[in-house]
Amino acid sequence: MTSTSSQSPIRIIPPALPNRTIKSILTSTEPGTSVKVQGWIRSARQQKHVTFLEVNDGSSLKGVQAILSGGQGKGLVAGTSVELEGTLVKSLGKEQALELQVSDMRVIGPCDGETYPLQKKRHSFEFLREISHLRSRAKTASAILRLRSASAWGFQKFFESQEFIQVHTPLLTTHDCEGGGEVFKIAPRISARAQQQALEEHQNQSNPTSSSTTTSGDKAANAIIAAPAPSDFFGSPVYLTVSGQLHLEIVASAISRVYTMGPVFRAEPSMTPRHLSEFWMLEAEIAFLDKLDHLLDFSEACLRETTRYLLENCADDIEFLNTWIDKSLKSRLTQLVEQPFARMTYTEAIEVLQRSGERFEFEPKWGQGLQSEHEKWLAGSHCKGPVFVTDYPAGLKPFYMRKNDEPAKAITSSGVEDRTTVGCVDLLVPGIGELMGGSLREERPEVLKKQLDEFGLDQEEYQWYMDLRKFGTVPHGGWGIGFERYILMVTGMDNVRDVIPFPRYNHHCKF
Amino acid sequence: MTSTSSQSPIRIIPPALPNRTIKSILTSTEPGTSVKVQGWIRSARQQKHVTFLEVNDGSSLKGVQAILSGGQGKGLVAGTSVELEGTLVKSLGKEQALELQVSDMRVIGPCDGETYPLQKKRHSFEFLREISHLRSRAKTASAILRLRSASAWGFQKFFESQEFIQVHTPLLTTHDCEGGGEVFKIAPRISARAQQQALEEHQNQSNPTSSSTTTSGDKAANAIIAAPAPSDFFGSPVYLTVSGQLHLEIVASAISRVYTMGPVFRAEPSMTPRHLSEFWMLEAEIAFLDKLDHLLDFSEACLRETTRYLLENCADDIEFLNTWIDKSLKSRLTQLVEQPFARMTYTEAIEVLQRSGERFEFEPKWGQGLQSEHEKWLAGSHCKGPVFVTDYPAGLKPFYMRKNDEPAKAITSSGVEDRTTVGCVDLLVPGIGELMGGSLREERPEVLKKQLDEFGLDQEEYQWYMDLRKFGTVPHGGWGIGFERYILMVTGMDNVRDVIPFPRYNHHCKF
Repeated sequence: MTSTSSQSPIRIIPPALPNRTIKSILTSTEPGTSVKVQGWIRSARQQKHVTFLEVNDGSSLKGVQAILSGGQGKGLVAGTSVELEGTLVKSLGKEQALELQVSDMRVIGPCDGETYPLQKKRHSFEFLREISHLRSRAKTASAILRLRSASAWGFQKFFESQEFIQVHTPLLTTHDCEGGGEVFKIAPRISARAQQQALEEHQNQSNPTSSSTTTSGDKAANAIIAAPAPSDFFGSPVYLTVSGQLHLEIVASAISRVYTMGPVFRAEPSMTPRHLSEFWMLEAEIAFLDKLDHLLDFSEACLRETTRYLLENCADDIEFLNTWIDKSLKSRLTQLVEQPFARMTYTEAIEVLQRSGERFEFEPKWGQGLQSEHEKWLAGSHCKGPVFVTDYPAGLKPFYMRKNDEPAKAITSSGVEDRTTVGCVDLLVPGIGELMGGSLREERPEVLKKQLDEFGLDQEEYQWYMDLRKFGTVPHGGWGIGFERYILMVTGMDNVRDVIPFPRYNHHCKF
Repeated sequence: MTSTSSQSPIRIIPPALPNRTIKSILTSTEPGTSVKVQGWIRSARQQKHVTFLEVNDGSSLKGVQAILSGGQGKGLVAGTSVELEGTLVKSLGKEQALELQVSDMRVIGPCDGETYPLQKKRHSFEFLREISHLRSRAKTASAILRLRSASAWGFQKFFESQEFIQVHTPLLTTHDCEGGGEVFKIAPRISARAQQQALEEHQNQSNPTSSSTTTSGDKAANAIIAAPAPSDFFGSPVYLTVSGQLHLEIVASAISRVYTMGPVFRAEPSMTPRHLSEFWMLEAEIAFLDKLDHLLDFSEACLRETTRYLLENCADDIEFLNTWIDKSLKSRLTQLVEQPFARMTYTEAIEVLQRSGERFEFEPKWGQGLQSEHEKWLAGSHCKGPVFVTDYPAGLKPFYMRKNDEPAKAITSSGVEDRTTVGCVDLLVPGIGELMGGSLREERPEVLKKQLDEFGLDQEEYQWYMDLRKFGTVPHGGWGIGFERYILMVTGMDNVRDVIPFPRYNHHCKF
């Protein structure tokens, strides 16, 4: 069986812009060809009779090396935007295959070299965050932006190949994360103009041709009363979503294979390099899936294919980051693509941790959550690569995860005991921690009903969720990948603030 | 020149799930083959010795027609989820090429036929909105969901082919739409647990091994004071974005070709079939673009290629909507793909409107905005297709649009006069209204500075925007497409609430 997208004929879409990118020029031009190049000067090196410019337009890591003779390049500084015409010739330098012998040079926009904050040196990531409106011009930042875009595209290519449809789950939701989480609440800031407009709309509706028996005066008065108060815009409290899962489950109960990719929000005041107030999640939900292992297979294939796509299509950017940010990047990514991920149950993980001889701050104990130190040891030291940990104790997980039919043999202080677990999975990755989390969802209406009760959740409020089980329930499951954590993994970066173009966190929201 | 994405080798990604979709089974199986099918019963027709089922899994409009002999199909009702095994055979019916002779049938999840709201009849869209957690199971709703997903994918394929990178612009922003628009404000709902956690984090940081000279007691006290008040989470008021344009401009000043696709928000209390509080926008920003016509060419190519993609890949869904929703759908979409869009300036549009002989409620007048009735007449009656209207009066448009070098010859009551216009465009489409809006952006620092003053905007607050012009400014432009309006256009639907899976509008936010 071939995938659907491969069946449709590939149409080459012709270029729709008159100019060409530097990437396109450098990858598909024969030496000796006349070309026109536009970009920003990354660096300018003036010699007596000649000036060397590195000009970049963001289309690829490497810009074009341009050679200007005579006084043509005089006074040019980094940051200036230029248009260059000339001939591409084979380069004598080792850095590039082709270079541009410039015949005509035009400054598009000068750069105030005195105050331009990006000088030709390595800037700290902290400094670049301070000038985030210029950060994309820094080499590392632009490499990360390209890898981020290619990752999003790679994930989507994978989902298309598997016949998934993309669902735009809502950002505004009445779900408040069961009251426990740190969420953002929203309220409209209604302007005077809008109030007036609402009033006029009501007045228009009550014109003399209307069959209404009330007078238009009455209606206008009602309109004033009916104009929404800020707290009443939606009629109930509304929050920014923390996950698209429940909404995906709705659609998956009709269209079996669905995914979503979008921002989610946490109002956590934490300031760690792993937390943002607005971050991106990739979430999948699959109907007619009844084995946890199939969920693992699927997410492993997804991560493998996307990473393979990056290795094949972003070689320059990965090479650059491998040199300057993380010398183990390429080997880690290659391992991820080539070697199967390890798999163990939570119960096995606890045993392995207990037998490890390691001195953990928190003693590993069946029934307790895995601490960060445990996760690090499992992925980094024990498995030396990604590891799926499955089937956690039911008491540690949310109400919607499916209870396993067989109990686990838990090692407790009083010996081995039968304990209830749920069909869930966390993917732990060295240096990253939890990259993916997922589960089978409880599809049995009677079990789910009990769960709602046990968690103290309102049956009425979850009637729609119960309905999905009442009308042709199916076994199903899904997972979510923290997109920024994936980007950390494929760039070798340490801080999530540096892998999202506009980071939002406690006390930080620029522009 | 070929596009970049076409240069990379096409890798066929193998299936990562064990079961197959009905679409895949029906499109790539030889008659006589044994298959296993899973899905929900759309309809069940019981005859004396045989039962006909239509079983659908959402992978395509048409499900599989299954034939059960004997008592196998007894009591089966719509909504039930089933697993069927059998042989695919050539169908004698006209409705489908293949049908499934069932040997084994298993009910996965029964359906309570008494209370199941989706009976085999046409339901009104109003009714379906009431049961939006089951709406995706209705034929029209699922066709729209598939077309919506294919549209998103089609747009992205186009952008990839043109070497754009996808930028995740933020949803949280300090921009409040210059104070005029109706925006949502956000504030965290901080739980007691989070307060406690923040306190503990601070305490951990002040343990005895720390080199700090203050006592840990002092630090803990500070932590309590520092724990964020709801209004102080980001240190300044934060809103939900109304557009990603300004953020895209930042990235486009380093990576020349960028786009974003995501939700934007309006707190408008309007209840029209064209307005939502949360809707999706596709936005593009292009550096080194100095002619408005190039922007028009580009957006025309984008709409044409995406629509072509739908015609080629969603033929069944479009055919269905053409039959049941809008009999002109296919011909309209074909016209869109094949015929160039009309183009006229605002000044020409005013002339044409004035000469039209139509009796408009609002008299067309140079300097006044085009009313909805004018737009409808221009696209629907005059051009009979999409029309770009360009170069509006500067006074009607926002501060960032580029002032044209040449004034327009405006027809005023005192004769023809020179008036200033901006390099902008609205794309008007019959039956839809404004589908796309865009402009060249003011790239000349001295002109932009004056504009900020004229609009009463704070120079300080827009320093970052001025910086983009101070350090290597380039001519650039961009546009935004209202995604739901595009979906209205390609589905023939009337109401935006029916083309987004979870509509949010005044007094309506479900789940």
